[in-house]
Amino acid sequence: MRENRVRTICQNGGAVINGWLGIPSSYSAELMCHAGFDSMTIDMQHGAMNYDVAFPMLQAISTTDVTPLTRVPWNEPGIIGKVLDAGSYGIICPMVNSRAESEALVRACKYPPLGSRSNGPNRARLYGGADYGTAANDTVLALAMIETAEAMQNLDDILSTPGLDGVYVGPADLSISLKNSMPPDPMGAQAMEAIQKVAEACHRHGVIAGIHCMSAQHTVDMIGLGYQFVTLQSDAAFLGAQANAMVAEVRGSEAKASPKMY
Amino acid sequence: MRENRVRTICQNGGAVINGWLGIPSSYSAELMCHAGFDSMTIDMQHGAMNYDVAFPMLQAISTTDVTPLTRVPWNEPGIIGKVLDAGSYGIICPMVNSRAESEALVRACKYPPLGSRSNGPNRARLYGGADYGTAANDTVLALAMIETAEAMQNLDDILSTPGLDGVYVGPADLSISLKNSMPPDPMGAQAMEAIQKVAEACHRHGVIAGIHCMSAQHTVDMIGLGYQFVTLQSDAAFLGAQANAMVAEVRGSEAKASPKMY
Amino acid sequence: MRENRVRTICQNGGAVINGWLGIPSSYSAELMCHAGFDSMTIDMQHGAMNYDVAFPMLQAISTTDVTPLTRVPWNEPGIIGKVLDAGSYGIICPMVNSRAESEALVRACKYPPLGSRSNGPNRARLYGGADYGTAANDTVLALAMIETAEAMQNLDDILSTPGLDGVYVGPADLSISLKNSMPPDPMGAQAMEAIQKVAEACHRHGVIAGIHCMSAQHTVDMIGLGYQFVTLQSDAAFLGAQANAMVAEVRGSEAKASPKMY
Amino acid sequence: MRENRVRTICQNGGAVINGWLGIPSSYSAELMCHAGFDSMTIDMQHGAMNYDVAFPMLQAISTTDVTPLTRVPWNEPGIIGKVLDAGSYGIICPMVNSRAESEALVRACKYPPLGSRSNGPNRARLYGGADYGTAANDTVLALAMIETAEAMQNLDDILSTPGLDGVYVGPADLSISLKNSMPPDPMGAQAMEAIQKVAEACHRHGVIAGIHCMSAQHTVDMIGLGYQFVTLQSDAAFLGAQANAMVAEVRGSEAKASPKMY
Amino acid sequence: MRENRVRTICQNGGAVINGWLGIPSSYSAELMCHAGFDSMTIDMQHGAMNYDVAFPMLQAISTTDVTPLTRVPWNEPGIIGKVLDAGSYGIICPMVNSRAESEALVRACKYPPLGSRSNGPNRARLYGGADYGTAANDTVLALAMIETAEAMQNLDDILSTPGLDGVYVGPADLSISLKNSMPPDPMGAQAMEAIQKVAEACHRHGVIAGIHCMSAQHTVDMIGLGYQFVTLQSDAAFLGAQANAMVAEVRGSEAKASPKMY
Amino acid sequence: MRENRVRTICQNGGAVINGWLGIPSSYSAELMCHAGFDSMTIDMQHGAMNYDVAFPMLQAISTTDVTPLTRVPWNEPGIIGKVLDAGSYGIICPMVNSRAESEALVRACKYPPLGSRSNGPNRARLYGGADYGTAANDTVLALAMIETAEAMQNLDDILSTPGLDGVYVGPADLSISLKNSMPPDPMGAQAMEAIQKVAEACHRHGVIAGIHCMSAQHTVDMIGLGYQFVTLQSDAAFLGAQANAMVAEVRGSEAKASPKMY
Repeated sequence: MRENRVRTICQNGGAVINGWLGIPSSYSAELMCHAGFDSMTIDMQHGAMNYDVAFPMLQAISTTDVTPLTRVPWNEPGIIGKVLDAGSYGIICPMVNSRAESEALVRACKYPPLGSRSNGPNRARLYGGADYGTAANDTVLALAMIETAEAMQNLDDILSTPGLDGVYVGPADLSISLKNSMPPDPMGAQAMEAIQKVAEACHRHGVIAGIHCMSAQHTVDMIGLGYQFVTLQSDAAFLGAQANAMVAEVRGSEAKASPKMY
Repeated sequence: MRENRVRTICQNGGAVINGWLGIPSSYSAELMCHAGFDSMTIDMQHGAMNYDVAFPMLQAISTTDVTPLTRVPWNEPGIIGKVLDAGSYGIICPMVNSRAESEALVRACKYPPLGSRSNGPNRARLYGGADYGTAANDTVLALAMIETAEAMQNLDDILSTPGLDGVYVGPADLSISLKNSMPPDPMGAQAMEAIQKVAEACHRHGVIAGIHCMSAQHTVDMIGLGYQFVTLQSDAAFLGAQANAMVAEVRGSEAKASPKMY
Repeated sequence: MRENRVRTICQNGGAVINGWLGIPSSYSAELMCHAGFDSMTIDMQHGAMNYDVAFPMLQAISTTDVTPLTRVPWNEPGIIGKVLDAGSYGIICPMVNSRAESEALVRACKYPPLGSRSNGPNRARLYGGADYGTAANDTVLALAMIETAEAMQNLDDILSTPGLDGVYVGPADLSISLKNSMPPDPMGAQAMEAIQKVAEACHRHGVIAGIHCMSAQHTVDMIGLGYQFVTLQSDAAFLGAQANAMVAEVRGSEAKASPKMY
Repeated sequence: MRENRVRTICQNGGAVINGWLGIPSSYSAELMCHAGFDSMTIDMQHGAMNYDVAFPMLQAISTTDVTPLTRVPWNEPGIIGKVLDAGSYGIICPMVNSRAESEALVRACKYPPLGSRSNGPNRARLYGGADYGTAANDTVLALAMIETAEAMQNLDDILSTPGLDGVYVGPADLSISLKNSMPPDPMGAQAMEAIQKVAEACHRHGVIAGIHCMSAQHTVDMIGLGYQFVTLQSDAAFLGAQANAMVAEVRGSEAKASPKMY
Repeated sequence: MRENRVRTICQNGGAVINGWLGIPSSYSAELMCHAGFDSMTIDMQHGAMNYDVAFPMLQAISTTDVTPLTRVPWNEPGIIGKVLDAGSYGIICPMVNSRAESEALVRACKYPPLGSRSNGPNRARLYGGADYGTAANDTVLALAMIETAEAMQNLDDILSTPGLDGVYVGPADLSISLKNSMPPDPMGAQAMEAIQKVAEACHRHGVIAGIHCMSAQHTVDMIGLGYQFVTLQSDAAFLGAQANAMVAEVRGSEAKASPKMY
Repeated sequence: MRENRVRTICQNGGAVINGWLGIPSSYSAELMCHAGFDSMTIDMQHGAMNYDVAFPMLQAISTTDVTPLTRVPWNEPGIIGKVLDAGSYGIICPMVNSRAESEALVRACKYPPLGSRSNGPNRARLYGGADYGTAANDTVLALAMIETAEAMQNLDDILSTPGLDGVYVGPADLSISLKNSMPPDPMGAQAMEAIQKVAEACHRHGVIAGIHCMSAQHTVDMIGLGYQFVTLQSDAAFLGAQANAMVAEVRGSEAKASPKMY
């Protein structure tokens, strides 16, 4: 079965630089895959696409050797099965707050005996190879999002779930939950303390520590904390930031420019 | 009829900062419209969308007060009529090399007596207003691309076409045509000389001078040359540049980082 | 944050005339928004669209000042979060029959501390404004459908749910449930009695009373009963009614017409 | 091969009531087919769809016994061939102003020896039957739009084109062209005189006279003039009219209503 | 209401040859319907489509007299209601392992008093007829998938669920569950024993026995075992098999061919 | 720049087995690419897709090392440029009947100095590599379809067009044109004689001889005639043939089967 680069890099002690797709287009997905990422996650939770648009995005990622992952909208076995059958090599599942929820995630992601995923990996077999059925459990990743105070309390229970491959911290939601109010404060002391705890717990349990990062520096810092699966912002953030910066640069220069020739 | 901001700004002696859409998504289109552009062009020639995807992109632009324009794939009346009926407030038409071709463009873009555009502005009336039919000829823009040596030779013939509102220089194709070989040299002396000639000729003929620009500085320079309709790169260029820069920043810092904690 | 006209009109004691979209097209959605409605609801339950088609429909509504709402297919947090992130200003949720279900609805619709909605309002921030995160709980509407005998029994429990903004009566389903058989009898005495009770209970609890109406007269009658959020049929009903009437008119006249000239 | 009801009704001396689709949705297309029309035309010229959306609309029409037709964006053989292969039973072609243009239309619509349509009726064979190849020339309709002063001058030349099955008058564009200015005056004396001439000429040449109508009465009137293929407005017109009327009815009643109960 | 051919054939003691759609295209769906199947199932679980693509596929099936069915991704009332409203004449629901789950399936598929399906069969009424509301419970099929050891243990409880019309065996998943490991062994003794038990139990309970088959011979064998609703592979399996066979045939002949002429 | 396997195989004296896509789906496109073909052509002329659907199909092909080609609907520079920019490695253009038409094809397919293709290979550069601009003329294929009596008369003029890389015979259309009537007779003596002439002429002119084949045997025969680019039927033909055969096999066995058990 085709390698899951996220597993390989993590096993080799490296850090996976993960891209994040919120724009519903297979063209921008392919473009992002040429920027140097190791893996690429289609965000079906907050991103602007559902399955019918995500499917060709998974194909677009597969034109490169970047490993395709998906964040599903919710811990629901129907959509988890669908995106795995479509060739996603890992599931990032939001709001896993208890052992019962992490077990449900594993059940949906893994074939027996680890779980009860239904057999029918139609595109996954094209992408992964003919031995997909027997190798998938060791290749596909089940990553539980840790993003609430409740999840922090159940951290060890969650991390010790058989078949769970790792976690993915949502710092914004985690900070909101910890202080029980908006707006998010993902860099605040309370959130940072929890983020450090998660990294340590993952290390203890031998599972992958993943996290969403808001900037290049944040990403580097999180790698420094031991996070091996780090997401660097998103396509929409990149597009917005660069468009705003470039227009501002023109507007600034334009303002100071001498009058038009004509 | 709703104002065409491109016309207004040009008439007031200002410069229109135009955005450029090559990503086939109404979400990224809307995102781009929040970056400070005056107008936004859907590039149906080199961009990754045709009409069925461009239609909701025109709607997405209309959620803001940014003026929607379209570059059509070719000087063909069928597609020109379709995107105008869909609410595009201007046509940028590639490869207009002769008076015959500029007249064909005007025929397709304008109602009688200026042209022979067919009546049926279904979405355009929703966007533009109930008086669309009688006001469209004075609102909608017909812009001919000047991007070949042949067009440079016929420049005055093209610019004097009744009903033509302006031109749009494609510096890359123009440079290729002038030296009759790849790769493009849009900043080279040969191209720059032609670009200056076009600006002067537009001034002489009283039509809008537009041009595609490769950077913020290039954009400012072209405004300095008298171009009043200037495109600042594109969504795909923004996304690619920022994604590459950010990943490189992380990779660079990561390389120098101390070993992982675990 | 951009105003939610449904809230404003209701707070001012007026009645919101709501449109209803079952046709999966962003063009007909925009067309409907020019007919004089205050708000417009995309019906993802019985309408012919899912998220990937509903997304550009939300953009189409946003080309006007009509407030966009969505009826979701079910009380499921994944899809509720997705359509809110896409810019829907309110959720109409089917089959809310108990306090547990209304609480689940509020949890999915509201950020902490009212609920546990996950943070990531990508398009919603473009539409609503930069302060979306902190203002959303007071702007976005959570409306529970009252459409079963069970819901009628739990009415006070449901209406007193903290964070619930109102209810929406489905008279057809309600009548079916009350008599426990098809076909619906939404104007029957049994249904009308329940409909009146709901209006009174909403008044008592200070929440919005909404209802689906089958005709202009029905709509006016329901406003008379105190319903402040009234849906006037649907796009599909309008299209079908007018098409049938017009064809019948032609067929009728044609039948009586004198023989053809040729 | 499956019957073309337009041909049959016309041959029997009846009038075909044709529906018109501008909304890009296969659901509204199917809905329209249940309203009593004989044939249904997808308007790819002024309607909001191109081929990728029109294809499932052709399938939707085929769920009924209503005959599917298409107005193409332009007299271009690529798109004409595509929609015929997709199962359209007739082409309405805009802006046919000369014998050369009507001959080009026939070439694109008919197989040799009448024309040079390329063979490959993939979906058309599913819809029409296994003998599609040999029967298509006698079944599929080529209808030229008469909508300019130039076309009126060349009327006999156009109508006598071998293989042309009829014409379709666009009264709005025709009136614009005749007076060489906006807005259209499709009921004016000038247009009406031309419309009558076309009907008579069609009778003389033994081809189908078709026309676009703006109301039920207009439709009946045109049948009275000898038009046998009459289009009754459009889906978008129906939807807009009914939505506006219904909202106005509620607003009117509401305004006169007594104060709210609560 | 339009007949459900699956019911009719089963009641007449025949066997329904069911087709299976995993390719997300309304064209291939229509093509499949011309191959001689009695019914056609859109596989939304393992197939490559979700609702927005499945909707026009249901229309495509309705261009023929083949009965349209849908396998849903999961036992979730939202999607079950949506595909029934879109005109599906039956639901095949995966992983029904207990009486509670079969009852939930019936609740989602049937109107009161059998279930609690919400009323709003928008396209279903166009396809099925004006009496859809009252006739649907006796027409639409609710079929529970038996594909786990747990379901085998609860077989009588599941089969005796009021309103359940039959079952559908997934031999691959059933074999995986019975031996609690990959790969599937759907023809093995353990699976075959269970498959025989299901057929007998269906006979006892007077419900339809359905099963997924891997080849023509397998299909015939299952009919021999008393299965009356038998699926013959799938569109993707057909396409892959024939493409591979044909290329292999050419490659084989080519290898043995004499040298090229030029 | 990434290799064009069609060129390489032809230069090495081999035969390219080309697949053909008429089903509008990126999933079936990817499935086809796993069957052993060397290249894969999206048929935008008779196939059921236009650009907006073809784009993700090009991406799907790019998940494998199969070379992507496109048959365009017509010899029109707009669509030719679009599919090349989308990453198609060759254009098959229908109905090239004269030197003027083959020159127009080359102009649209090649950059200066060979042609006048406009620069902007947005996805093509991602697929082909950073040197796409300078290497494209030597990599991308321009193939003219020879499918009329007129083309046969102008064969040497067409084949000697500078920049034209080869031809592609459409045997069905060619036979129709030669006898000037339907139905096609692609294996008849008249067509076969022309097919042989084309192969010889291509050899003489040193360009690629390509042809559409109706069966495996036909494909092998054409390779024997010297055709180096041979298309083996199509996805739709494969699907239809296998579905019909399998259903017939079941029906045949079923008919002879003993009575049902129950």
